[in-house]
Amino acid sequence: MFGKKKVKPLKIGLVGLGKIAVDQHIPSIRANPALELVAGCSPNARPEGVTAYDSLEEMLAAHPEIEAVAICTPPQIRHKIARQVIAAGKHVFLEKPPAATLGEAEAIADLARAKGVTVLASWHSRYAPAVETTRQWIAGRKIKSIHVVWKENVRQWHPGQKWIFEAGGMGVFDPGINSLSILTRIVPEKVIVKKADLHIPVNCEAPIQVEMDMATESGVAIRADYDFLQTGIQTWSIFVESEKGEKLELSMGGTGLAIDGKEIMKEKEAEYPGLYAHFEKLVRAGQSDADFSPLRIVADAMLLGKRIDAPEYIE
Amino acid sequence: MFGKKKVKPLKIGLVGLGKIAVDQHIPSIRANPALELVAGCSPNARPEGVTAYDSLEEMLAAHPEIEAVAICTPPQIRHKIARQVIAAGKHVFLEKPPAATLGEAEAIADLARAKGVTVLASWHSRYAPAVETTRQWIAGRKIKSIHVVWKENVRQWHPGQKWIFEAGGMGVFDPGINSLSILTRIVPEKVIVKKADLHIPVNCEAPIQVEMDMATESGVAIRADYDFLQTGIQTWSIFVESEKGEKLELSMGGTGLAIDGKEIMKEKEAEYPGLYAHFEKLVRAGQSDADFSPLRIVADAMLLGKRIDAPEYIE
Repeated sequence: MFGKKKVKPLKIGLVGLGKIAVDQHIPSIRANPALELVAGCSPNARPEGVTAYDSLEEMLAAHPEIEAVAICTPPQIRHKIARQVIAAGKHVFLEKPPAATLGEAEAIADLARAKGVTVLASWHSRYAPAVETTRQWIAGRKIKSIHVVWKENVRQWHPGQKWIFEAGGMGVFDPGINSLSILTRIVPEKVIVKKADLHIPVNCEAPIQVEMDMATESGVAIRADYDFLQTGIQTWSIFVESEKGEKLELSMGGTGLAIDGKEIMKEKEAEYPGLYAHFEKLVRAGQSDADFSPLRIVADAMLLGKRIDAPEYIE
Repeated sequence: MFGKKKVKPLKIGLVGLGKIAVDQHIPSIRANPALELVAGCSPNARPEGVTAYDSLEEMLAAHPEIEAVAICTPPQIRHKIARQVIAAGKHVFLEKPPAATLGEAEAIADLARAKGVTVLASWHSRYAPAVETTRQWIAGRKIKSIHVVWKENVRQWHPGQKWIFEAGGMGVFDPGINSLSILTRIVPEKVIVKKADLHIPVNCEAPIQVEMDMATESGVAIRADYDFLQTGIQTWSIFVESEKGEKLELSMGGTGLAIDGKEIMKEKEAEYPGLYAHFEKLVRAGQSDADFSPLRIVADAMLLGKRIDAPEYIE
């Protein structure tokens, strides 16, 4: 071969082989020639065509060639697993939210820095097709206000997921944090929580509905309405109004875009390929992307928020 | 004069002239020859001997020579005031907690960095006399466990302070954050919240009692017991046990120290002079000290904690 030397694909192992791994991670890795899925591990799941092990230790022992590990487990155990992965000198891809607490997330970033490996705190919604166009639209204007409306039916989208309503499960912030990951990407300044009403069912620990007032550092008002009991039309939209009265709607979680009522974009959801391309670039460049601001906003809302009793939640 | 050139004292203005300003800030500034109290401002308080104005704007307009401003207001308005102070190019001393949320605190630090002024997120308990000795004792040992016991009678120490039990008031974390500021100073690693039981009176918004499990990054167990209804003996202690079985007790909020049952130190409380000496050094060196980890621990506890109904609180 006399042409350009081909870079060897980055060898990846997966921890957690549940729904998100099967639906998103495995096909995205396989579709990217710069990546190679070596193996996965899970105490129980055995998706077809994946060399699978019972534990991280077994996977790494059998495949020392693994260079990077994507952690797709529930957030509660991500810190522990990330510690082991980093100690083994592997790069880390963290599903969202990066950890159960800000302290854990910061500890992971510190460890990765000390060990010289890449960490990506991934926020898949940032890779929705209309997010970058929205970011540029905002960058070119004086913004008057932003309104986040994220309303879905928990009974339809999260059946049987009791952990969401347990302490630390975040409730409606579990989907809501996706909107916050977009918000903190499209707004050039820091986003600060000013007030939050947290409606918590009397038999639950986490909010089912939230109204939140935020503001940018320079004072642009941001309102957010989260509802986990939305029947009928489901809404995952961010409305932006400029000082001149121009209006943008980022809809369907970032796949749709309309400006002044005119549809600009309506794409299929495809976030993980972009996310993995970003991860590969970070690893090649020896860099990290560890922005925890969406999790920080949720923690601040829980710190500051007013708790209001809501009716019992029954699935 | 042919001797060493005397440095001119740092000219300070105070925002907020309430109890903490009168009891601690004003005497500590006056006792330090490297500092000069120029003026203060408050919408109502007029402490004797202090040139006072109704507002920050008036104070700064009358005294452009002010170089640094100490903010002793309630935390809810610190972010707004700090913005104005930094915009005027003055250094900032923030009372604890530095702001109402982590987002506000980080925004203040960002602004100070951009403007090239010093910011001190002050944690007065870190300047208690026995804290440094405790830090060194821990640094020289393998630690087995740490137990924080912070129990006081809210009716005695915070009479009429209804805001403490309102949303964002932090409840028993208002004094408890002092123990966390010591903990994060004496422990060389990051402190991570693992579990928290938050007992919230049915007529209040913030916890009156908290049991919390934390751990250091490398796994040392840290337990904390906070109680705001402690009658009889009040306790502000941190117990440390080494792997060899040696025992240290930092007591009375950091003024007392006993090792293996033997009293080593029993001093009078005098934290603010050390805090102001630290601030003056930071300003002279062009540095900042913006460690928000105690506030981050409280936010993580509120994010992760299990809420438990406690009996009505009646003052």
